[in-house]
Amino acid sequence: MVVQEESSVEKAYKYETIVADLTDKIKKGRYQPGDSLPSIRELCQQYGVSASTVNMAYLMLETAELVEIRPRSGCYVREQVRSQLAVPSKSKPNLITQCVDLNDVIMNIATASLDEEVVPFGMVAPDPAFIPFEALNRELIRVCRQNNPRQAYYDFPPGCYEFRYEVTRLALKWGGSFDPNEVVNTSGALEAVNLALETVCKPGDVVAIESPTYYCYLQMLQIHGLQALEMPTDPVTGIDMEVLSEAMRQGRVHAVLLIANYNNPMGFVMPEDHKRALVQLAAQYQIPVIEDDVYGDVSYAPVRPKPIKAFDTEGWVLYCASMSKSLIPGYRAGWCLPGRYEPTYKRLKWMSTAANASLQLPAMAAFLKAGGFDRHLKQFRPKLRALNHLMAQAIEACFPPDTKLSRPEGGYVFWVEFPDAVDTLALYQTALANQISFSPGAMFSIDPTTYRSSMRLNFCFEWTPRIERAVTLLGQWATEQLKGTR
Amino acid sequence: MVVQEESSVEKAYKYETIVADLTDKIKKGRYQPGDSLPSIRELCQQYGVSASTVNMAYLMLETAELVEIRPRSGCYVREQVRSQLAVPSKSKPNLITQCVDLNDVIMNIATASLDEEVVPFGMVAPDPAFIPFEALNRELIRVCRQNNPRQAYYDFPPGCYEFRYEVTRLALKWGGSFDPNEVVNTSGALEAVNLALETVCKPGDVVAIESPTYYCYLQMLQIHGLQALEMPTDPVTGIDMEVLSEAMRQGRVHAVLLIANYNNPMGFVMPEDHKRALVQLAAQYQIPVIEDDVYGDVSYAPVRPKPIKAFDTEGWVLYCASMSKSLIPGYRAGWCLPGRYEPTYKRLKWMSTAANASLQLPAMAAFLKAGGFDRHLKQFRPKLRALNHLMAQAIEACFPPDTKLSRPEGGYVFWVEFPDAVDTLALYQTALANQISFSPGAMFSIDPTTYRSSMRLNFCFEWTPRIERAVTLLGQWATEQLKGTR
Repeated sequence: MVVQEESSVEKAYKYETIVADLTDKIKKGRYQPGDSLPSIRELCQQYGVSASTVNMAYLMLETAELVEIRPRSGCYVREQVRSQLAVPSKSKPNLITQCVDLNDVIMNIATASLDEEVVPFGMVAPDPAFIPFEALNRELIRVCRQNNPRQAYYDFPPGCYEFRYEVTRLALKWGGSFDPNEVVNTSGALEAVNLALETVCKPGDVVAIESPTYYCYLQMLQIHGLQALEMPTDPVTGIDMEVLSEAMRQGRVHAVLLIANYNNPMGFVMPEDHKRALVQLAAQYQIPVIEDDVYGDVSYAPVRPKPIKAFDTEGWVLYCASMSKSLIPGYRAGWCLPGRYEPTYKRLKWMSTAANASLQLPAMAAFLKAGGFDRHLKQFRPKLRALNHLMAQAIEACFPPDTKLSRPEGGYVFWVEFPDAVDTLALYQTALANQISFSPGAMFSIDPTTYRSSMRLNFCFEWTPRIERAVTLLGQWATEQLKGTR
Repeated sequence: MVVQEESSVEKAYKYETIVADLTDKIKKGRYQPGDSLPSIRELCQQYGVSASTVNMAYLMLETAELVEIRPRSGCYVREQVRSQLAVPSKSKPNLITQCVDLNDVIMNIATASLDEEVVPFGMVAPDPAFIPFEALNRELIRVCRQNNPRQAYYDFPPGCYEFRYEVTRLALKWGGSFDPNEVVNTSGALEAVNLALETVCKPGDVVAIESPTYYCYLQMLQIHGLQALEMPTDPVTGIDMEVLSEAMRQGRVHAVLLIANYNNPMGFVMPEDHKRALVQLAAQYQIPVIEDDVYGDVSYAPVRPKPIKAFDTEGWVLYCASMSKSLIPGYRAGWCLPGRYEPTYKRLKWMSTAANASLQLPAMAAFLKAGGFDRHLKQFRPKLRALNHLMAQAIEACFPPDTKLSRPEGGYVFWVEFPDAVDTLALYQTALANQISFSPGAMFSIDPTTYRSSMRLNFCFEWTPRIERAVTLLGQWATEQLKGTR
């Protein structure tokens, strides 16, 4: 693949550059709330674009609730929601290579809270109410009616061409230029990551991961007989590049596995210079990087961040993604761009599930081609931002004052760090008995005590009094733990 | 689960007992071609059933082309197709526990022959022309139209209840009585077997397998870092029970993985006393047995053989199956009855692909419920038997006279053993250059030289002059190799 810096594709999304620049300046406080942004004429000159391009950028910033457009006056920076709560601490795992041997009790929590009666703070999945499944099902009906005999057969790897083509169109949005033949379809991102691990690791190998890390990864490492090296991870910038770089230099690491964009569970986006540096390290030490970008499209702002893969000119990054978090889980539409590992990766897909179900990917491709995903994101992104704000406000209102809270600008989880005296496993038992689920911090590390006072909360569902009450109860129980009355 | 010997279910299929008994007697030569079978009245007395039950049994035997019903005369045994060729030899692998380290070149063959222009002797999959996909797609359209929000979501393990219920109905046909909650849905039987291996083995463990064995299993063992112990295997009765029993007794084996019914590639059905003995050994030594029964329903006769699972009262058998060979591959409808390993198995399904695509299993369930699968098998079984005969005749007509040929009574592959001087890898190169695929024997063992003179041939497609010519060419090239002229 070739990363396009100044291509026709980039030009087509010139307004996105302006949006990204101005967003960055607002976030960093160069423009303060109430400040007016440069005029249309000024921006036209500065970026060498037309007035309509600048207008488009303004509209995007307004959709993202960063600015307010006042007719016949200009474009003004809005008051940003600023949490009173501190951000969580940078993690400090002990830098020991460890076999993964998880406590069943803890891992069963992941599967315990599927009851529809339970408040779903524990799962990370979109509320079906937010999923345009009727439009997708219409496409599926259309595909069924074609009665194409090939779709009765195995959709062998790399799988449905139309979907792989649409995947390359999605990549164009972050500057990635791929051929559909570089894409391998998978049954969700989970299979994509599983196959990536199988592709680049053999039992006993060491994988560097973020800490806290997505609990399914710990399970996967255990299943594949791999060892984990948990890395210090910053709640704003992600994995500690210095420590990681040293571990790679020392040859302690056979692969790196991470979520660079809207990390699960911490919510951060790795800065671009870190992403670029990681790709350079991968090439220098010939160590593959498995990137799970399943949340990348679920930015609250109209422009999504670039993945690590965007900087990978030599194919060391195995880029895994799916439509499960950004559009619909039920269609199991995942994929991988395995870079230089493509032949092995494709063969392993063959040997793991042989093929995807053959009808839903052509339907998904038709939906994407017709612009359905873009339309969905236009509604979904502001909705998520609003839900993020509502949840953050509720947490601030009723959690203990020394609680720390992550600052995601995409995805739909918060990472909450209570004061040390709170035990979220005990809290979990209380919550579940009251029909409330969440993910206790113990699930996110090999050592279940590391994050014993932390929790992950999902907020991707309609905001209701019941939800608000559930947040209040969690805060109340945590406060009681602190006071020693629970 | 409880195996029902004399239950109401068995009574409902009383005619099947008669069919099985008479089939057995015809196969064993107790009744010779031309003999008349006992009269309706005699059979009524013998089995204690009504005349209509005996009539049903006669009709089934006729469908299976075992007998001919002559009106007002009786039921006569037909001339059976008897191959002039000997059956392949019993295999004699060296009994060394081996790490699996496969030759890429050989394994790439499995994925090389997907070109539609190539004669597909290499793949084991039904010709789309034999698949009732239009009827299945109609059910899928019906499910799509329901627009059930739950089907937009993850279909988390164990997965779609309606399909699991139908799986228990299928099991009734071989006397297995299960609760739907004992079933875990998977993405095809391949994932079912993969998860079974992950459930019961850790890297380094030893798995006893048949020899020759299905090449995907070798791949799986390699991927999971498992060792293989190839067992002597008889082309008529399957895995050598004496050698296997000794290996289990010595503690050399952590799991057994096999295809007991219409084995791929040898075609045999393990005798019931071997199946019963294996279950007893499993219980005695507490060693799990992974059974892949993907061909079990594809018997040519109306009554399918019992799987090993039918004799498993203590849950040591992980029974894996799918609809991919018997109905349709594209729907990826697989399942496992993991017995005592169900909790772990379910969790591993969660961590491998999280969920099946959510719409096609309810559609498949509706198709099964409406009797679509039974109707399909009624057409499919005699068709396969006819194709088996056509292929066997063509092979006899043009393969070297000392060739040995398997005798499958279900499934759709032949195992061909040429005289030693034939090298099927070289033959494969010639064949592929002429747009003909097959599976060289080298793919079916850790040691690619073991079956260097054998090959597996698929025959599940419409018989055409082109197919017949392809068989002729294979025979011609093999003969030339023998004469040293190629």
